[in-house]
Amino acid sequence: MTRFTKGHGTENDFILVADLEGSLELTPAQVQRMADRHAGIGADGVIRVVRTRFATDDTVRALAPEAEWFMDYRNADGSLAEMCGNGTRVFAAFLRREGLVFGSSFSIATRAGVKTVRVTEEGYAIDLGPWRLVDEEGARRDGFDVMVKPRHGKPVPALSLDLGNPHAVVMLPEGIALENLDLTEAPELHPEPTGGANVEFVRAEGPGHIAMRVHERGVGETRSCGTGAAAAALATRFWSGVEDLSPWIVDVPGGRLTVTPLAGQRVELAGPAELVADGDFPL
Amino acid sequence: MTRFTKGHGTENDFILVADLEGSLELTPAQVQRMADRHAGIGADGVIRVVRTRFATDDTVRALAPEAEWFMDYRNADGSLAEMCGNGTRVFAAFLRREGLVFGSSFSIATRAGVKTVRVTEEGYAIDLGPWRLVDEEGARRDGFDVMVKPRHGKPVPALSLDLGNPHAVVMLPEGIALENLDLTEAPELHPEPTGGANVEFVRAEGPGHIAMRVHERGVGETRSCGTGAAAAALATRFWSGVEDLSPWIVDVPGGRLTVTPLAGQRVELAGPAELVADGDFPL
Repeated sequence: MTRFTKGHGTENDFILVADLEGSLELTPAQVQRMADRHAGIGADGVIRVVRTRFATDDTVRALAPEAEWFMDYRNADGSLAEMCGNGTRVFAAFLRREGLVFGSSFSIATRAGVKTVRVTEEGYAIDLGPWRLVDEEGARRDGFDVMVKPRHGKPVPALSLDLGNPHAVVMLPEGIALENLDLTEAPELHPEPTGGANVEFVRAEGPGHIAMRVHERGVGETRSCGTGAAAAALATRFWSGVEDLSPWIVDVPGGRLTVTPLAGQRVELAGPAELVADGDFPL
Repeated sequence: MTRFTKGHGTENDFILVADLEGSLELTPAQVQRMADRHAGIGADGVIRVVRTRFATDDTVRALAPEAEWFMDYRNADGSLAEMCGNGTRVFAAFLRREGLVFGSSFSIATRAGVKTVRVTEEGYAIDLGPWRLVDEEGARRDGFDVMVKPRHGKPVPALSLDLGNPHAVVMLPEGIALENLDLTEAPELHPEPTGGANVEFVRAEGPGHIAMRVHERGVGETRSCGTGAAAAALATRFWSGVEDLSPWIVDVPGGRLTVTPLAGQRVELAGPAELVADGDFPL
């Protein structure tokens, strides 16, 4: 039996497996079985909690002096992933509950490098790192650089951002309700970026406050996407013309996130993390 | 903390909560939280395991002399349900594992009365009770009594059966592949039965062997539906003209079931049951 904890961050959910000394080899088939929503426990991803110095990957192991714990993240299909913004908060909540970290700020190792986590009132904040406009010149001239056509909808202009992964953000024009969008299929992008993009549809709720829905490439609509929320806030901030470091509230279907632009073209994501259940699973 | 077990029967999945002495009041909100696939544990339904003599419902409590254990079944939305064919097998597997029943056959109480469970090689068999053709005269004359139009498809003839709940079964004509059916929306029925119906699409695989997909009313496509599998086998048997008591193999997306017509216009459903994980959840 393998001990597990299930948790979620704005309803992006994960199975955590504590393997502190790195003795557990987690095969793609085992991850798939655990993550299966009907035949297994069910989750968007599986996170192995392991001491960084026991990571099998040399690049990760080299991060051991900076971060004691490595977030070994696997997608539900068993493939490795570099990072997951919502997963990081759940990982942090688990480390704290288990007494594996102390203090109000600590570093964690990921396949995308060391990330700094800060304890906040509502949960955790994480520095997502650098971001950029994919076509800054086009964006500054036209306000957008790509067209997005949702299923059963008309093409609308969008802004492309890179947060380590690609995003296209649409500010919904008057007369199109966020709730009525059909996201059961991937929106079409023109021109189609190589490798596709996550697409965020945004509605302005007030100053520094937006609501959004997201279609994740290769996945479908999800309840929350951390980098998507950051991209949506950063695009809206760009369109507003006031590019200061004020925080943005981003309402996603699974809850509320806070996105704060940081100096040096970086961005921070903050939000809740819940540990829901603990149990045993035969691997 | 409340102890739970997660299990599934042909990927129809359930959370079992042992409340042997009936001390737990399970509110719809608690059921919803447990069954939530992202913010909770996740399941199609929640089953409270309780001694029949402690059931709150008088009609159920009256079954105590015949069946020691009551399957208190709740849908994921918190509403009460009378019965669930796949759930019954998982309930039986739990009773056996916990040493609450003995022998190769035993009775369980449900809101639809006492059901008899038999241990089989592959899992459990349960007598689903009586069934009937909704329009026997029309069915014997034309072979069908209703038209079904799947999304993006042409209308095809179907047979209506009542197994305690309503079903319409379609034998797919040549040239329509079971895999390509679009079941993302409810198929249309003409005439539309009051209260709707579950719809099964069947492909003949060989003598006594069919494959099917099912759209459950109010739910959508599911990996398995026990009464749906029985309806599909009984309809195919009806069309075959040989109405004997031979068993039928029914392949559903979540696995394999066996449907056996019983004397006296009854039907038995058999299939596997897996207990997947055990854990604790704060109610």
